Amino acid sequence: MDNPLERTVSLLTRTPRALDALLRDLPEDWTHRNEGEGTWSASGVVAHLIHCERTDWIPRARRVLEFGETRAFEPFDREGNQRESQGKSLGQLLDEFTRLRSESLEQLRAWNLRAPDLDRRGLHPSLGTVTLSQLLATWAAHDLTHLHQISRVMAHQYREAVGPWGVYLGVMKCDGHSSG
Amino acid sequence: MDNPLERTVSLLTRTPRALDALLRDLPEDWTHRNEGEGTWSASGVVAHLIHCERTDWIPRARRVLEFGETRAFEPFDREGNQRESQGKSLGQLLDEFTRLRSESLEQLRAWNLRAPDLDRRGLHPSLGTVTLSQLLATWAAHDLTHLHQISRVMAHQYREAVGPWGVYLGVMKCDGHSSG
Repeated sequence: MDNPLERTVSLLTRTPRALDALLRDLPEDWTHRNEGEGTWSASGVVAHLIHCERTDWIPRARRVLEFGETRAFEPFDREGNQRESQGKSLGQLLDEFTRLRSESLEQLRAWNLRAPDLDRRGLHPSLGTVTLSQLLATWAAHDLTHLHQISRVMAHQYREAVGPWGVYLGVMKCDGHSSG
Repeated sequence: MDNPLERTVSLLTRTPRALDALLRDLPEDWTHRNEGEGTWSASGVVAHLIHCERTDWIPRARRVLEFGETRAFEPFDREGNQRESQGKSLGQLLDEFTRLRSESLEQLRAWNLRAPDLDRRGLHPSLGTVTLSQLLATWAAHDLTHLHQISRVMAHQYREAVGPWGVYLGVMKCDGHSSG
């Protein structure tokens, strides 16, 4: 495996199925509770992933391909997940994420990107110059940071239930490192 | 959902499918690399979960039911995963974990535990007195701490690839909190 794009796509393809297998029809005690005021539940994280699928990865990649560094990405709306989740069950959110991810990967394949394309540069509103390769790698790592978050938010619901074993469970000590 | 045992089982049932959906046939760059010497790859974590299924959860629950606090649990062998994984592909490990978890849950159902049973006490070799309820809750939280670990170990493989975005990805800053 020496093609970083294939490696990235292999993970992006699996995330919706993994989240579906973990979360669908799980009791709401696991999926709708968060870590306290202003934090996200597992269900809220899925809504965030939907919002990113709509507004972040493919739209930003398209901007790199069309405008290079001459037009910066739109700033990302971190609260967009609230709009995405309104009135929807977790099952509906999982279905929507699966559909949108599939459409994103279809668009990515249609671009038929080659190694030189991955070096093309874009402009991030805060981070400055970034490459298309970095954007696509971040898409996959972002799936992982939110899987990391979901496992932590769910474990948080059992922090009392495990009693003295809490000291052995690393996830119980994770504070999220300020994001994800 | 006010039955903590049902809540625990609902998660325990889903973990093998979630890991399968995430990891099966994923390139080895994702699944067989670790975070440095003495650390585990995603594949090594699955081997650890197999080892726990054999030696930890159900055997310890059985000891609580049979001996209460009069006989302590066997200490857990943290290196047992190396023996479990020898000569096996990740696909084989995932199959084995799925089978063993299913057998564990079958045994758990066969005990037909009631609320008073969950208060029964056992003796942990380091932690002292624990309850069956705490043991079973820890089984589920342990799945989550290792899902947390797998997402972190995989993200570690992309720490260079994401370039400047690393600062926004909490999982890249996680050091595992000494365990899991």
